[in-house]
Formats: sequence, structure tokens, C-alpha cells
Amino acid sequence: MVNVSVLGYGVVGSGVVDILKKNGKSIKTRAGEDIKVKRILDIRDFPESEYKELFTKNADDVFNDESIKIVVETIGGIGIAYEYTKRALKSGRHVVTSNKELVATHGPELLKIAQENNVRYLFEASVGGGIPIIRPLRQCLAANMITGITGILNGTTNYILTRMKKDGMDFDEALKGAQKNGYAEADPTADIEGHDACRKIAILSSIAYNEFVNYKNIPTEGIKNISLTDMKYADALNCTIKLIGHSRKTKDGIYAWVSPAMVGKDMPLAGVNDVFNAIVVYGDAIGEAMFYGPGAGKFPTASAVVADIIDIVSHPEDGFKNNWQDHNGNTLELTDPSGIAAKYFVRVKSTDQKEAKRAVLAEFGEDVKYLRLPDSETEDEFGFVCGKMPERQFALSVERLKKSGKVDEVVNKIRVLEG
Amino acid sequence: MVNVSVLGYGVVGSGVVDILKKNGKSIKTRAGEDIKVKRILDIRDFPESEYKELFTKNADDVFNDESIKIVVETIGGIGIAYEYTKRALKSGRHVVTSNKELVATHGPELLKIAQENNVRYLFEASVGGGIPIIRPLRQCLAANMITGITGILNGTTNYILTRMKKDGMDFDEALKGAQKNGYAEADPTADIEGHDACRKIAILSSIAYNEFVNYKNIPTEGIKNISLTDMKYADALNCTIKLIGHSRKTKDGIYAWVSPAMVGKDMPLAGVNDVFNAIVVYGDAIGEAMFYGPGAGKFPTASAVVADIIDIVSHPEDGFKNNWQDHNGNTLELTDPSGIAAKYFVRVKSTDQKEAKRAVLAEFGEDVKYLRLPDSETEDEFGFVCGKMPERQFALSVERLKKSGKVDEVVNKIRVLEG
Repeated sequence: MVNVSVLGYGVVGSGVVDILKKNGKSIKTRAGEDIKVKRILDIRDFPESEYKELFTKNADDVFNDESIKIVVETIGGIGIAYEYTKRALKSGRHVVTSNKELVATHGPELLKIAQENNVRYLFEASVGGGIPIIRPLRQCLAANMITGITGILNGTTNYILTRMKKDGMDFDEALKGAQKNGYAEADPTADIEGHDACRKIAILSSIAYNEFVNYKNIPTEGIKNISLTDMKYADALNCTIKLIGHSRKTKDGIYAWVSPAMVGKDMPLAGVNDVFNAIVVYGDAIGEAMFYGPGAGKFPTASAVVADIIDIVSHPEDGFKNNWQDHNGNTLELTDPSGIAAKYFVRVKSTDQKEAKRAVLAEFGEDVKYLRLPDSETEDEFGFVCGKMPERQFALSVERLKKSGKVDEVVNKIRVLEG
Repeated sequence: MVNVSVLGYGVVGSGVVDILKKNGKSIKTRAGEDIKVKRILDIRDFPESEYKELFTKNADDVFNDESIKIVVETIGGIGIAYEYTKRALKSGRHVVTSNKELVATHGPELLKIAQENNVRYLFEASVGGGIPIIRPLRQCLAANMITGITGILNGTTNYILTRMKKDGMDFDEALKGAQKNGYAEADPTADIEGHDACRKIAILSSIAYNEFVNYKNIPTEGIKNISLTDMKYADALNCTIKLIGHSRKTKDGIYAWVSPAMVGKDMPLAGVNDVFNAIVVYGDAIGEAMFYGPGAGKFPTASAVVADIIDIVSHPEDGFKNNWQDHNGNTLELTDPSGIAAKYFVRVKSTDQKEAKRAVLAEFGEDVKYLRLPDSETEDEFGFVCGKMPERQFALSVERLKKSGKVDEVVNKIRVLEG
């Protein structure tokens, strides 16, 4: 029998307790031992809970109990969760978490403490909710040199973009709907500004390339500037707009970005809708593989936490052979993605479209493909997709176009995702 | 250092040798030890190979070499591969294979021999080529009661169906193209009749439900009867026709089938094209997850084999806690899927369509939805989708419709996949 303590009885924590009880028998078969929740730490009261005798508000009840070997940290954030995680690892306990903020921020230090104490720190649930992705990256694709990851990593924004596209809602309306349905928080900043997706692509990249990728160094753009008109242009281009987290390992180094992108409808990511997430992994042997599933939610996320617990019970001695320690105390320097060539979609407003197109041609060259929507409200504008060019050159060209006096406004610009 | 011997230097076997060499450094980091190919057994000569000094035609050179701890069986079939696998396991060697025929046929016996000899028998590459699916099912989804699996499991037929749909080729033309491109064998029976997909759904179901599901008991239908006209009807129904392997665990038991099916375009499987495979897994905690990637090919499949090798080197002691042994010497009895309710699409030819529709209504009830294509070559027919009914009742109704004298021909009938 292995005793577990759950810290934080919120959505995910309570799901973990439920699954360990409900599927206890088959979990025992797989883990080789009974897994029992001995203590639940939470500052709130749960007088109606069927587990009420397990609750405590005093962390010492957990940490002084020598029989507790695994701590599940489902508190979230980097305050008390960070302290408890360190305390648990230093006291020789394994820790399992769904806390992407903590892993993305203090991952190298926590993994080092875990190694020093011969325990494991696992975080499958920190990315992609229930989708198995960290274990597949580490184990199933272990024969590969991983060269890239591209994913839809945030369920809230994917829900908003899906509602805009399918139901014709504008951004604000779709956001309100997401909040009403519990898919977005009262303060949705971390989701819609792309910060959540940024932490996740940082964690995935760190696993894939075995180098700690600091999320603070990843250029990140959210979806606030995406309009229904942009979606119509996307449709005309046979694309769908998705919030994409993207990283590549090239001979020049590792780079990453998070931003909305036009995704061709023939790419598997284009069909990922609502709160689902999906992650495409590129490797030198497999080519590409995609992992798809619910990116959040009580039981899916708890499913990933419990899989980590079972892994620890089956293989308590497994080290994480990582190289996440800082490079001489410094963070790995990422390659600047603004040097990477890509295509972009641009919307231009102009009273004299002929002159505006001439200016576009002069700035972006012959490869430009023009696009017009049939709607009357867009008759004073046109869109175009430029040929492949480095992002920084593209940005300069847009600036020059704005200043040329030949266009009234550059309404929006959106990256086009390549396969 | 761990010594490996590769039996069968065909497409997959040669890929394994190449990957172990090319990615040797990172594989060593992950496995904790160097992995070296010491012997390659093949009856053919490879005088130009860079590994030519490793080849032997004499199995004793492998089995008498005590330093060889892992045997890779990439021979295929159930003849000599079966003999060598038993010999390897009984001599205390781990075996890794991509051989779905052997696993589906002799899996229970071989796993039992492996257990008796404290070695492992792994076969990630036997299903879905490079797609990680067996390890995710066993480990990543270990917290779940798996309730169902639905997949596109055969690359050849998916390529043929994709060419028919996208390029308007008929079945024979698409098959010839597949053969020309090396995606189909000279004798394509095992693929197009569904036998290959059947073995794979049997293996996946056995892993998922931890009971040996014998492929011989799974009703299987191939894609030979699918025409371009059927594809047009599918399109009108907002569906795509795919060859589906399907199994479910219900309170009444386990059932499975392989057949072509109409897949709604909003389902993730609908977007899986060309030689790609995808497997949707249903579990009580996660809901659904999908695994997508190349279903065949030298390096993708070898990638899965090498992942198994790395797993063995990292965890030589891991048992496979399976319950695949026969039930008192008998195979697990599957539930008859003909009792399961489903919707079906039917094409009916008739000179008197009004009377034919009356007969359809009388036989299939009010839930019937009619469908007509605008093409002139289908003006003497119509299609309909019936309400949900058990397969055997549906079959009886079709027979009665045929005998009613009110229709000239039932041209085709195709299952409609439900989510």
C-alpha cells in the first residue's frame, strides 16, 4: 500500500481523489500496489465531503506523516505551491503536479532537488490536460531527435475561436460565453494574452530538446486582435485561425513563439475545436505524430495526475535524466524567431486600392497574393499573403507601407503556419 | 552496453539498425546504456551494406551468443518468426517485434513464456506504425477504465479511400496507384479485405480491456464494395468513408467489428488522410483522446521498435501484468455486434421511386432520411439513412426490402459511425 496526500482540493485535486477511489481496483492491478489517499490539505472546509475525515488545514499533518510517500500538488500558482513542493521533495517524497506555472518557472530547481533526494517530480498534467504528451515525448519517441513541436495548447482561446468561427460571435461575445460555461476565468488575461500557452510550449520544448526553455524568453501574442472579418479572410484562404504554440530546434539553436496563425484546413490541427487541445511532434524517425484530447477539465486532468502516481509506484527509482540545470547560472539563450522566414496575411484599408496595391507590390515583391471578400463592409479594403520572409523584414516592410501614404490603415496581420 | 540482434533485415529491421546508429548518442542518454547491434540474421546477402560484418544466415550465431540480451523480430508472419520468438524468450532474452500477425495469433502463449522466463515481449510497432499507442494505453491512460477504441488502422486502404475521394479515382485505379507507390503489396488481400485492421483492433482491444480478444472472432468487412458514387453520397451527408476498426467494452461484454463506415466530417477521424493512421481511445476519466501519425513506413515503425528496446534497457524487470491467458483453454467469447444498434446508409435502385420509398418507410419506419444526388447517372436510385437499429434487425429489413418486389436493387449499405 502506498499513501498519497493531495494538497489543494480544487477541481483537479478532487478529481484525483475520486479517480483513485472509483478505479482503485484496476489501478492496483497496474501499479502493483494499493494507492490510498491518506490526507487532503486545504484551507477550506468540506463538511459534506465523503472524505471529510481526511481533510486538514495544517501542512505538518502531511509532512510529519512518515507513511506518506507521494504528494500531489494541485494548489496552483508559484507561492505556497512552490514552498510545499520543495518541502516535499527535500523530505524524500515524490511530487506529482498539474501546475504549469510552477514547472515553467522553477522546473530546473525542483528537478535538481528531486534528483538530489532520489525522488521523482512528474508533471504530465501540466500540459494538454488529459492528453498523454510528456511521457510519449520522453519514452515513446525516445528513438527520435525531436526537431519541432506545434500545438493548440489553450482550451479557453480555442473555445473562443471556435465559437467565433462556427457561431459568428465576435470576440467579446465568445469570451462572455466561455466565462458563463466555466471555460474562462473572471480574469481571462493569462489565457487570451497567450501566457498560458507560452508556459506550456516552454515545458514541452524543455522536455523535447532536453534543455530548459524559459517561457520569459518566448515572444507571445494573444488572440484579442482577431476579428470575425479576419475569420472570413481565413475561410477564403482555406484556413482556420488558431492560437499556436510553436518551437523548433535547428542547427542555429532553439526558437519558439506563441501567436494566432492561419492553419490550412488540410492540416490536422485545423480540425481541433472547442476546448480540445492537440500537439504535433516532429521527429527525425517518425516524421510527425499528433496527440489530441481534452485540454482541461476535472477528470481528464486528474487522469494524467493519476497516471504519474501509478508510474511512481511502479518505478520509484526512475531518475529524470534531464539537463534542465541553468547553463552556468544563465538561462539558455533562444534563437530570435524574428529571423525565421514565414508567410504573413495582411489586411490593408485604402480609398485608392490600385495605388495601395502598387505600394504593396513595391514593398513585398511579386509573390504577393491578393484577396477580397465579397461583403460590402470590406469593400474599402483588401487582404494579401506575402511570400516567405523573415519576420523582422516583414515588420519593417509593414512599417514602411504604413508610412508610404499610399494606404489608409494596416488593419491586421496574421502569421501563416507552414506544415 | 546492451547487445541486440535483429532478425530479418527488411524494411523495418534495417530501419532499426539505422536509427540505433544515427541517434546512438541521445538513445544512450535516454536508456542509460549504449545499445549495440551485434548480429543481423537474414537469409539474403547484403554485400554492399555498411553493416556487412554483422550478418549471419545461421540462427545459432544469435542464440549461442550469451552477450545478446534483446532480440528484435522483424521477420513477419507466423512461421519462423514464431519459432525464433519462442526460442529467444525461452533462452531468457527479451523480444521486441512489429509483427502484428504473430501477436494477434500467438500473443497469449508468447506473453506467458516471457513471464515464465522473466523477460519482456513488447510490440508497440505492431499497431499504428510509429504512433505511440500501446504504451499510452497501458501507462498514460492507466487511471482510466477504457471503454472503447475506434481507429483508422490500415494505411493502404486509407490511401486508396483518400485517392478516390480527393482525385476521383475509382477503387481499381486507386489500388494500382497504391501498389505503384509501394503503399500496397502485389497481393493486397490482407489490407483491402480488412484482415490487417482486424488484427490490429484485436491487439488494441486486448491491451485496453486486459483480456485476449481473438481476431478470428471479429466480423470483418473490407473496402472493395466502396464506389465513387458512395463517396458522393457520403459527401452529401457531410461524411467521409473510412475503414474503421471498432471495439467497445459494455456491461454485456466486449464486441468488435471492422468495416467501412460513414464518418461525420466534424469527427477528428474524418481528417485522417493518405497513409496516416489514427486511434481514438475512450476512457471514463479522460473522455476521449486521439493518437495520430504515420501508420507504416521504415523509420516510423523502426522508431516504435527502438522505443521498446529503450524501455527494456531502462526497465528490464517490468512484467506485463496481463490476463491474456486463455479462459480455461478457451478464447474469450465476444458479444455479437449484430445486437448493437447503429444507423445505416442504404442505396436503392428503383424504376418506381414513390413505391420504393413507401416500401422503405414500411420496413424502416418514420426515422428514415432520404437523399438524392443531382447526377444523371444516379437518377434511377436514391439513398437513405435509417434510424438506429440493431444490425441483425437491419439486415433482416434489407432482405425483406429486396424481396418486396418494390425495389429493383439494394446497391450498397454502409454503417454510419457514431461518436
